[in-house]
Amino acid sequence: MESGKRTDVNKLGEFGLINHLTNNFKTKINRSTLYGVGDDAAVIDKNTDEVSLVSTDMLVEGIHFDLVYTPLKYLGYKSVVVNLSDIYAMNGIPKQITVSIAISNRYSVEALEEFYEGIKMACDQYNIDLIGGDTTSSLKGLVISITAIGVGQKGKVAYRSGAQLGDLICITGDLGAAYLGLQILEREKQVFLASPTLQPEFDKQDYLIKRLLRPEARKDVIEMMAQNQLVPTSMIDISDGLGSELYHICSQSGVGAFIEESGVPIHNDTQMKAIEFNMDPITTALSGGEDYELLFTISPSEIDKVKFLPDIYIAGEIVPQSEKIKLHTVKGNIHPIIAQGWNHFNQD
Amino acid sequence: MESGKRTDVNKLGEFGLINHLTNNFKTKINRSTLYGVGDDAAVIDKNTDEVSLVSTDMLVEGIHFDLVYTPLKYLGYKSVVVNLSDIYAMNGIPKQITVSIAISNRYSVEALEEFYEGIKMACDQYNIDLIGGDTTSSLKGLVISITAIGVGQKGKVAYRSGAQLGDLICITGDLGAAYLGLQILEREKQVFLASPTLQPEFDKQDYLIKRLLRPEARKDVIEMMAQNQLVPTSMIDISDGLGSELYHICSQSGVGAFIEESGVPIHNDTQMKAIEFNMDPITTALSGGEDYELLFTISPSEIDKVKFLPDIYIAGEIVPQSEKIKLHTVKGNIHPIIAQGWNHFNQD
Repeated sequence: MESGKRTDVNKLGEFGLINHLTNNFKTKINRSTLYGVGDDAAVIDKNTDEVSLVSTDMLVEGIHFDLVYTPLKYLGYKSVVVNLSDIYAMNGIPKQITVSIAISNRYSVEALEEFYEGIKMACDQYNIDLIGGDTTSSLKGLVISITAIGVGQKGKVAYRSGAQLGDLICITGDLGAAYLGLQILEREKQVFLASPTLQPEFDKQDYLIKRLLRPEARKDVIEMMAQNQLVPTSMIDISDGLGSELYHICSQSGVGAFIEESGVPIHNDTQMKAIEFNMDPITTALSGGEDYELLFTISPSEIDKVKFLPDIYIAGEIVPQSEKIKLHTVKGNIHPIIAQGWNHFNQD
Repeated sequence: MESGKRTDVNKLGEFGLINHLTNNFKTKINRSTLYGVGDDAAVIDKNTDEVSLVSTDMLVEGIHFDLVYTPLKYLGYKSVVVNLSDIYAMNGIPKQITVSIAISNRYSVEALEEFYEGIKMACDQYNIDLIGGDTTSSLKGLVISITAIGVGQKGKVAYRSGAQLGDLICITGDLGAAYLGLQILEREKQVFLASPTLQPEFDKQDYLIKRLLRPEARKDVIEMMAQNQLVPTSMIDISDGLGSELYHICSQSGVGAFIEESGVPIHNDTQMKAIEFNMDPITTALSGGEDYELLFTISPSEIDKVKFLPDIYIAGEIVPQSEKIKLHTVKGNIHPIIAQGWNHFNQD
């Protein structure tokens, strides 16, 4: 400030900004701090065979959600789910959350009740206790900050940095649907704006919109892994698009990745709608976001443990870092994959 | 929403709103959740002789701080300190924090560096690791959400609910200074607005402004207690004024309180400045805020353990609930004390 120098935050991008600001904090002061900034969640020693996992997210109205087409109940549900997803992505089990909100005066008590009803639904669904939070007023809009706390088993925590040469790359569920759900709703926004009392009926709407507005975290996959004694060598949740998550795994593990387009799971509805929007379906998977599926790597010796599990797809292989991150398309071409997460700083 | 009923959030006030919204969450799903909403921090079992303590706060520009007279470095420092204060108030030791911020485009990287410099100063001062967070954009102003995680000893955690009949009421430091610091800065705001490049020089300014802009948490008191094997029967940090905190202790412990005005510590500068502002000094202590001192109760048998400790003052006694919360003034009158925390919902 003193020097009068002014660098725009957009210049660094979201990843760059976090790294830049937290770079001075790398030294660990407390022995209990096993892992800090840089993964889906932080890891704290409990002095038992377990560790605590801590993850936090901030969601801002007008940046992360649009209340024109987002029912507050679903927003509450999703706000919790996206945080739980980070704990599962460490191969952990979330147990508690704190929820803080800043709200402008235009919110009624009834609106907040709806929001908290969604929070409660998610807590019941995932066996989570709400243990604290803060409620204050904002100058504009709604800001939500949620912290999730969970437990992991020592030696079984899945970091982004553990992928090994030759590991198989696995993806759960299907990708790209939420991104197209967003495109549909943005297109329909004018209709909603014209009749503001109309709330979209998502139960009767299609898969894509539900994937955007009411995503689930892959608790089931983490439970299956435990049952099958499978510990991924690395794992991350897919919140910013497959390309961005592959970039994190590869850069933190010091490896490259070779992805088969035919192995990337994309739902039929996503395929169809992508074509309607004149997009290549694989682009919605690579550069979309908000899927909240899991991307993980396993040793090839573990293949039998995933081969027969439902909803897990082998999409590629870990290769040397020099080969970078590449996609082998169904047409037989090989393209580089470029990380292209949602850059919220460029949206307004 | 469906019914069209609209209750203004101001109607419930901050305490009422939190209670109302989290009332359905009282049942604990996980055995590890020892205590949830309702104290300075939540308490999580670690399956050792220790517990985890978790506290979170959200600070909003224009509501909790005014950047006209708040240097960003101090704001970063204070944002951490207010959260640590909550962990100390459980008789715990904070170890880790997460820091999430939403910022508008008008913030430069340099401004954020200053903010994080303050965060770093606080982490160094209190031996804290920054372990995570989120950085996103906001539509307007700066929103800060910090979660602090600490450890407590099983059986030594100080809840708000433990005050017993006959216990002595203790207060650390001095009260009311930050509130008057705020009054001074609000009065001077026009001067700052006239020359916006001028940043107030707090090192050379008086005690009251420093108490507002760069408060400290009472780590030293918690350490002294441990050294003297003193475990308070109840404890809370004084962030919303003594009246409000007494109300929390008394309502949660099912007791009343009798406070001697002469026992409430008030700094000389606070006394003088209160008179200049035509206020009774005791009012700044009871209804001010942001002191971040500790209010605690001890068994009278423990009096020798605090009598000779620096900066701890015995200000009254726990009485039956039927006697409510009363102040015995230096003039010999007895007044009821009414909880009057800062209601942020009424500020805009």
